[in-house]
Amino acid sequence: MKDHHHNETHGAGAKAHGSGMKPLKTLISLEEGLKILLSLAKPIERKEIVPLQEAHGRVLARDVLAEMDVPPFPRAAMDGYAVLAEDTFPAGTFTPVTLELVEVIHAGELAKEQVRKGICIQIATGCPIPEGTDAVVMVEDTEAEGKAIRVYKPVYPRQNVSPQGQDISKRTVILKEGMLLSPGRIGVLAALGIQKVEVYQKPRVAVIPSGNEIVPLGESLSPGKIYDVNSYTLSTLIEEHGGIPTIFPIMEDTLEAVHRTVKEALAYDLVVLSGGSSVGERDVMVQAIEAMGEVKFHGIAVKPGKPTLCGLVEGRLIIGMPGYPTSCLTNGYGFLVPVLRKVARLPERRSSPIRLPLSRRVVSTIGRHQYLPVRIEDGEAVPAFKESGAITSMALADGWVEIPANVDLVERGEVVEVHLF
Amino acid sequence: MKDHHHNETHGAGAKAHGSGMKPLKTLISLEEGLKILLSLAKPIERKEIVPLQEAHGRVLARDVLAEMDVPPFPRAAMDGYAVLAEDTFPAGTFTPVTLELVEVIHAGELAKEQVRKGICIQIATGCPIPEGTDAVVMVEDTEAEGKAIRVYKPVYPRQNVSPQGQDISKRTVILKEGMLLSPGRIGVLAALGIQKVEVYQKPRVAVIPSGNEIVPLGESLSPGKIYDVNSYTLSTLIEEHGGIPTIFPIMEDTLEAVHRTVKEALAYDLVVLSGGSSVGERDVMVQAIEAMGEVKFHGIAVKPGKPTLCGLVEGRLIIGMPGYPTSCLTNGYGFLVPVLRKVARLPERRSSPIRLPLSRRVVSTIGRHQYLPVRIEDGEAVPAFKESGAITSMALADGWVEIPANVDLVERGEVVEVHLF
Repeated sequence: MKDHHHNETHGAGAKAHGSGMKPLKTLISLEEGLKILLSLAKPIERKEIVPLQEAHGRVLARDVLAEMDVPPFPRAAMDGYAVLAEDTFPAGTFTPVTLELVEVIHAGELAKEQVRKGICIQIATGCPIPEGTDAVVMVEDTEAEGKAIRVYKPVYPRQNVSPQGQDISKRTVILKEGMLLSPGRIGVLAALGIQKVEVYQKPRVAVIPSGNEIVPLGESLSPGKIYDVNSYTLSTLIEEHGGIPTIFPIMEDTLEAVHRTVKEALAYDLVVLSGGSSVGERDVMVQAIEAMGEVKFHGIAVKPGKPTLCGLVEGRLIIGMPGYPTSCLTNGYGFLVPVLRKVARLPERRSSPIRLPLSRRVVSTIGRHQYLPVRIEDGEAVPAFKESGAITSMALADGWVEIPANVDLVERGEVVEVHLF
Repeated sequence: MKDHHHNETHGAGAKAHGSGMKPLKTLISLEEGLKILLSLAKPIERKEIVPLQEAHGRVLARDVLAEMDVPPFPRAAMDGYAVLAEDTFPAGTFTPVTLELVEVIHAGELAKEQVRKGICIQIATGCPIPEGTDAVVMVEDTEAEGKAIRVYKPVYPRQNVSPQGQDISKRTVILKEGMLLSPGRIGVLAALGIQKVEVYQKPRVAVIPSGNEIVPLGESLSPGKIYDVNSYTLSTLIEEHGGIPTIFPIMEDTLEAVHRTVKEALAYDLVVLSGGSSVGERDVMVQAIEAMGEVKFHGIAVKPGKPTLCGLVEGRLIIGMPGYPTSCLTNGYGFLVPVLRKVARLPERRSSPIRLPLSRRVVSTIGRHQYLPVRIEDGEAVPAFKESGAITSMALADGWVEIPANVDLVERGEVVEVHLF
């Protein structure tokens, strides 16, 4: 496993003997690669209006200005009696003030009685404070005998009253453009009676499989052929992180086909190719993109997933992923997800990794950042990597561990950080 | 803020003077409450078949047996030359063996040439090993001169060959019933050519708002009324955790209405009521559920969110949530999410909390577990709680901190665990 130069192509198909099989020469570091990719990723500008019930997980495209106060009226913060505070000032534990109960109001009701000195109105939490009263005496501080309510403790004006607009006050910007709509924020919109909301569109992502050995699902496999895996792993990941994937027909390994397909894909917000960016057929993919725009880098010092390509054509970011399923999917997590989240204007993933001891010693390659898929078993991180071509490496893992480029060995029992899928 | 007995009803509406306003008496602990709820939550049994592209995030309802080998043929693990290993045994750095190049095969192609001693076939990673050859010499260990390929290093049989079925071998159970379909697992299904998959149905959840002061979105607010917030926060949370919410019309605060509505909701997998489970109107909700089945508990020692109700009617779990938006939503995260995930057969949320210092001292109540919404700002957890009725407490927070029942004070700068929303 010392030299991975040539084992990450998924159906390479060397075009010419010798010259087509040069290893990648200008590897850049993971950090540098990600920095370039992120600098080229443009946050989406298109907007759309969606009903509140479909707004979850979407990103606000404009500030939300409150057009009403919430609560829209001063309300009781306790169950008890609405009073004129000054009526209660003489009250004490041994010297209750007796007030006349003139009305009982329930949730959603308004008081009908005229308020005057010496009276009180029974009120439940959340009810509007009857006009003319200015405080609520808690039920615990009273004693009732028919219509006579004895108050044992004074209240000051506005005590136990939630003022109008306490939660949200009219004409303030309560949610800002760029905010992710969480359950709580959906609640703010509901509280304001807002039924539709302007959000950024989800980025449309072109997913382009390539490789002459690849067959779409639904066809039968002739000898030498395998099913298209990457289109499905990538589009699942894209959906998970706020994009709308479109799987293209399998692209042929010819200059003309790459040219035509990439041109068509420029209508999308992001273009992801899989396969065909490794050494064997580098000519076709790299040549096509060089002809149409610019190749920003080709080859990252990461394992697996080295033959990663970054291009820019007419301002569109093109990411070329390795064809081998594990390489493609680890790269998906490592590069595509942060790029897509930036395009979709989603915040960076913030969940922190889980710290667990490694179940066995792992050897890595100096100079290459390694993504190591791991299972979590009995409180240990168990390496699950089989080989770049094995999709089960990822399917049976719970997350991954990153081994930096300057580390060549992680001992058994050493605590590592597991990033969950 | 010492006594919260009465401030968590959302439009209580005390039914009778005095007797209707008893505080909750039989509080149980958070742990006990959650244990009871989880013991009553029944994992869904209904299954359905979905296309692979819609299978993401779903839970497998049966084991997946591989009906083919992956790879379906032995393939080259390197770019190079397929050979008969024994032809290369004499090779050395200064004594190359020269083989005749008889064919070049590209991705997806099969060799046509008859293999015999002394020949080799140029091959790319992923290509099927030509019949009759048994190893691949890496291109780096060779030199080409026209049709003459000089091999400088011997290979042993099967070297640089990935055997048929290496990743997935035919007739093994490769994915198990109950597994969550992640991008990697979707990839396994694709590799096997599987286009449809049997998964558990998503639980259907009845979301029933109540409270006479509550008005559905789209209607105008008359004085004393407020918009329905909880139906939207809860259904967003339900969707986020694998359920299909159905928002019911706002339920009246009468025995007959609760009876009729709960009866209708028994057709769902889980029933969530909001509002009407606090002290003011406990009679109606509790009475109705007692009459129809059993009230398992009413009142949890948690802040906010105390007036939480757990009932069981005809085997259906009924969760009564407080009406106040913050209380309702924190309870949604604390109780509804784990219960729903169990019903949906989703694994427990495993992301670990972020550890940050608290930006200011927080006082809590001994005997009540507190959910404290916090914002993350400049590497600190900043308390964001306003009051139970304020939806902005949750909307402008990034997560929550839990303060156990036996803690009454958390000092400024103390490191707390923030659970992200």
